[in-house]
Amino acid sequence: MKYSQLFPKTQREAPKEAESINHQLLVRGGFVGQLMSGSWTFLPLGFRVLQKVTQIIREEMNTTGAQEMLMPLLHPKEIWNETGRWDTAREVMYQFKDTRGREFALSFTHEEIVMDEVRKHLRSYKDLPIKIYHFSTKFRNEPRAKSGVLRGREFLMKDLYSVHVDEEDMYRYYWRVKDAYMRAFKRIGFEDIKLTEASGGVFTDKHTHEFQVLAESGEDTIYYCNECDWSQNKEIFDGLVGQDCPECGKGKIWQAHSIEVGNIFPLGTRYSEKMGVFYTDEQGERKIPYFASYGIGPSRVVGTLVEVSHDDKGIVWPKSVAPFDAHLIGLSGNALEVYTKLKEAGVDVLFDDREVSAGEKFADCDLIGIPVRLVVSEKTGDRLEWKLRNSEDKELLTLEQAVNKLL
Amino acid sequence: MKYSQLFPKTQREAPKEAESINHQLLVRGGFVGQLMSGSWTFLPLGFRVLQKVTQIIREEMNTTGAQEMLMPLLHPKEIWNETGRWDTAREVMYQFKDTRGREFALSFTHEEIVMDEVRKHLRSYKDLPIKIYHFSTKFRNEPRAKSGVLRGREFLMKDLYSVHVDEEDMYRYYWRVKDAYMRAFKRIGFEDIKLTEASGGVFTDKHTHEFQVLAESGEDTIYYCNECDWSQNKEIFDGLVGQDCPECGKGKIWQAHSIEVGNIFPLGTRYSEKMGVFYTDEQGERKIPYFASYGIGPSRVVGTLVEVSHDDKGIVWPKSVAPFDAHLIGLSGNALEVYTKLKEAGVDVLFDDREVSAGEKFADCDLIGIPVRLVVSEKTGDRLEWKLRNSEDKELLTLEQAVNKLL
Repeated sequence: MKYSQLFPKTQREAPKEAESINHQLLVRGGFVGQLMSGSWTFLPLGFRVLQKVTQIIREEMNTTGAQEMLMPLLHPKEIWNETGRWDTAREVMYQFKDTRGREFALSFTHEEIVMDEVRKHLRSYKDLPIKIYHFSTKFRNEPRAKSGVLRGREFLMKDLYSVHVDEEDMYRYYWRVKDAYMRAFKRIGFEDIKLTEASGGVFTDKHTHEFQVLAESGEDTIYYCNECDWSQNKEIFDGLVGQDCPECGKGKIWQAHSIEVGNIFPLGTRYSEKMGVFYTDEQGERKIPYFASYGIGPSRVVGTLVEVSHDDKGIVWPKSVAPFDAHLIGLSGNALEVYTKLKEAGVDVLFDDREVSAGEKFADCDLIGIPVRLVVSEKTGDRLEWKLRNSEDKELLTLEQAVNKLL
Repeated sequence: MKYSQLFPKTQREAPKEAESINHQLLVRGGFVGQLMSGSWTFLPLGFRVLQKVTQIIREEMNTTGAQEMLMPLLHPKEIWNETGRWDTAREVMYQFKDTRGREFALSFTHEEIVMDEVRKHLRSYKDLPIKIYHFSTKFRNEPRAKSGVLRGREFLMKDLYSVHVDEEDMYRYYWRVKDAYMRAFKRIGFEDIKLTEASGGVFTDKHTHEFQVLAESGEDTIYYCNECDWSQNKEIFDGLVGQDCPECGKGKIWQAHSIEVGNIFPLGTRYSEKMGVFYTDEQGERKIPYFASYGIGPSRVVGTLVEVSHDDKGIVWPKSVAPFDAHLIGLSGNALEVYTKLKEAGVDVLFDDREVSAGEKFADCDLIGIPVRLVVSEKTGDRLEWKLRNSEDKELLTLEQAVNKLL
């Protein structure tokens, strides 16, 4: 794509109210725009990143045998009353009356809505397991949303729900989803990620698990072992930093700030019991199914990537989710020809074709953070200057060499 | 995919309250589920159709140079007040106060939100045209939603917005989008579709255009020429059925029922003026940009397809948006082997592997409506019985022949 045609361009200054790094860099780079506090447009450049994050998560969910669908966002009060969450989750839910006095909530999660659909169809053990997920908007009544796209009044969520004959089958799939989450987060580009034990909040009495990315700017505090996989969050940790790990006995407990990018909930039979969901087992007996839910916020993932991967010049996107494969800067006449050839070779390239100074083009390139920078100028002749975003090394390559390294 | 693993299965009876054909067949086939009146889950089978419709629309929007993004659904009252639509569109908008007394609307369209983002970035004529679109949920306060997925309290919408230096450039792009819409609707499988002149409703004072699919069950009434492209909707038609066409003079005016699947609005400067959106032209003068918007409801498109393409046994999906390429019915032992080979060859196949009667499998296959039915049985030996959904002809093919016809 030609940068001259992209809406919008970069901006020099971050908005005054932007406190967090992701807010500052994503707005300056033209990735997102703020409608109001906690409410974001993913502009074309940001949408490309969001789509790549989404597609990686989709692929990993599908490997677990889960099926994609799409559920409504406006929910009747009656369904939320069945589990009591109309009252217990009132603080986080937007609730309102329509002009005819009927009461609704905006989706902050979908357990009740999934259970309602499941009970219409579930008859026999042969119908289980059920594994369904969607990418959809969630709303949370946030009094002060100050963390950029990390925390909003509304945000994108991938939520998966699974229904099982018994606890054993639920946990078998639960750990399979855990593995799929870890694969997704690695593919997205997170390096320091912990599976952290946590409490269930308004979801369940059981312990649940969070996926926490270590980040200095993180709002969460977690405790983890420096030797094994043991980790707990602040809500449930009951020990001292520096003590021996209760799990392996060899390592020590460390403390760190972190950002939660996903969570998984082994809900058990709480929702099925309250909502009257049953199935008939092989012996013809009526049984209560086990239920679990699993969330990842793709928009939050984008913000987290910026928090952990940037420098003083701008964002440094991992290759797997970068908005383009390469950023081509044209400083001489034959840049358009190079752009055309790169596109024909199948390279997804952003071409800065504007009539602005070289300095401005280089600064915007660093701000936008595409992993590979290519420069065509008088100096490079019939070659291209190749430079990675996170390195100062430059080399001169032929077009063919550049294409081979990119594809 | 194995049908035994798909959630949910078909159901014999339509819900009692289901008045429309799309409601009856989509629920019976397991494509959609109703949460409440006018509120639908697209279940895995229905989501596949929705995704294919969406992808065709996306491809055609991209050919016009439009850029995909994603905008918020919760909007502050202040923005809707700038154009006066907080009051004039009050009847269709869900409006509510949060717990802190702040007033919001749920998105029923996005003109104001787009204009707010555009005015933050638009400086010069060099920034124009801007062409941005998204697929997102829309909400409408519908008192009685009785048309299945055709009319809902919430639904999926592709809305595109374009901003231009002048009226001429706006109309140039307007007609280009019209062509892209026509291509999209043809690819989706609509045969009888009319471009119909209409009034602008709460959007604009100008005449707009609707894309109307001729359908006996349609709620709309349109008038069209039996010779040329002339067509008007009921709101603005001021003539008699049977009279000479005012456009070509050769044809006669006919009347028909129809379903609206898309609309395009040449909004002009109304929104830019009210919201203070400007740009600087080549002479350095401050100018008001021209604005247009363009909508297609992909969920409504799915319902319309069912209304115009079904028989007494079930749905007849066009090939381009069918949930699978082929429906394989296994009545003998080697069906699993055939299924595996079809998948390996790249055929997206639904394999009915259940232990139910042949009659039930054939009935479900007709209800679900995948274009190609393949049967493996004792009778077919090492071949496959090939039958199209909309034909009674059967032929015996080798696996290789079947694959070649499918790909």
